[in-house]
Amino acid sequence: MKLYDDPCSGNGYKARLLLAHLALPYHYVRIDILEGESRTPAFLEKNPNGRIPVLELDDGTCLAESNAILYFLSRGTRYWPSDRLEQAQVMQWLFFEQYSHEPNIATPRFWLHIKGLEKTPFNLELLAQKQKAGNQALAVMDQHLRSRPFFAGGRYTIADIALYAYTHEAHEGGFDLSLYPSVVAWLERVREQPGHITVDQLPAV
Amino acid sequence: MKLYDDPCSGNGYKARLLLAHLALPYHYVRIDILEGESRTPAFLEKNPNGRIPVLELDDGTCLAESNAILYFLSRGTRYWPSDRLEQAQVMQWLFFEQYSHEPNIATPRFWLHIKGLEKTPFNLELLAQKQKAGNQALAVMDQHLRSRPFFAGGRYTIADIALYAYTHEAHEGGFDLSLYPSVVAWLERVREQPGHITVDQLPAV
Repeated sequence: MKLYDDPCSGNGYKARLLLAHLALPYHYVRIDILEGESRTPAFLEKNPNGRIPVLELDDGTCLAESNAILYFLSRGTRYWPSDRLEQAQVMQWLFFEQYSHEPNIATPRFWLHIKGLEKTPFNLELLAQKQKAGNQALAVMDQHLRSRPFFAGGRYTIADIALYAYTHEAHEGGFDLSLYPSVVAWLERVREQPGHITVDQLPAV
Repeated sequence: MKLYDDPCSGNGYKARLLLAHLALPYHYVRIDILEGESRTPAFLEKNPNGRIPVLELDDGTCLAESNAILYFLSRGTRYWPSDRLEQAQVMQWLFFEQYSHEPNIATPRFWLHIKGLEKTPFNLELLAQKQKAGNQALAVMDQHLRSRPFFAGGRYTIADIALYAYTHEAHEGGFDLSLYPSVVAWLERVREQPGHITVDQLPAV
């Protein structure tokens, strides 16, 4: 398999983290999104939506969307529950992550920490709105984790992997995680999982 | 089962449409989001994220996120493939819908058609950005559908249901669907599916 990814992407880190847990070998293909490498004709053949990560299977089939990649790789493993309701609850948190969490937590990080706010076409008012919505998402997570060790199924699943990726770097988007003690304790539990890698542990190319 | 929903919501329509295909009986509980009914303490008990739709099972368990509800209801039916790669491809389009499509196509419709642009805290520049991104999403869909009848698995699945909901009303957000002829032909194929209901066909309460 090949993973097309930019090391700065939390969405790519989700796939790298699960591949590490599963000890699956793969080729890492670095795509520099700031240099437009995810919008070239060759890359758009792999994902017409022009986004990383993309998982390319050995037969050339390409799968986009980080959380769809997590689903594909986790089926039949300990990171995906077997119970139908628990599966749906994992899905609920994966969609929460892409709709309520990532656009409000990863985007401020991207503007402030990676691209530089002065280079975005957006204004400070929009940044403040995203930070407000991001804090609401963190509060929802904190409340849920007050009485549970992990997001769904009573154990570590791809829901935790998806939410860990940008939450553990939320301070780079101007968020104060000390306001969310149950989230902080959960981050530590995630780091203790066997096979955990940090965001900067890239595979050899 | 109970479905908590606002009739103006395309996300709720996804659940209503699949429930109609499956001929499953349920109670419809109308939540007026413009009146704040999705943010009351009683509703936040059902979904701490304060959003509809929510599916409440007979044992009181509540499931949020429209696409997680589609997954839950479709498993084991013709609307969810059995092949693992096809399942992941359905998931890819469900996440595309929530990340690249819905925020850019449903949100302009909400501002222009439902809430009224003058009541939003956003500006015209942001509306234009969303319409540009929404047109990019429609172009990705149109390209994909040029050589396929449906989004994944060669047949009508929950990926089509999810994408139909806001696409068929995209004109209410200022989009010109005649630019996307493969999308227009697909909309017609969706409407021809057995058990199809329109967005305003609400169940009796």
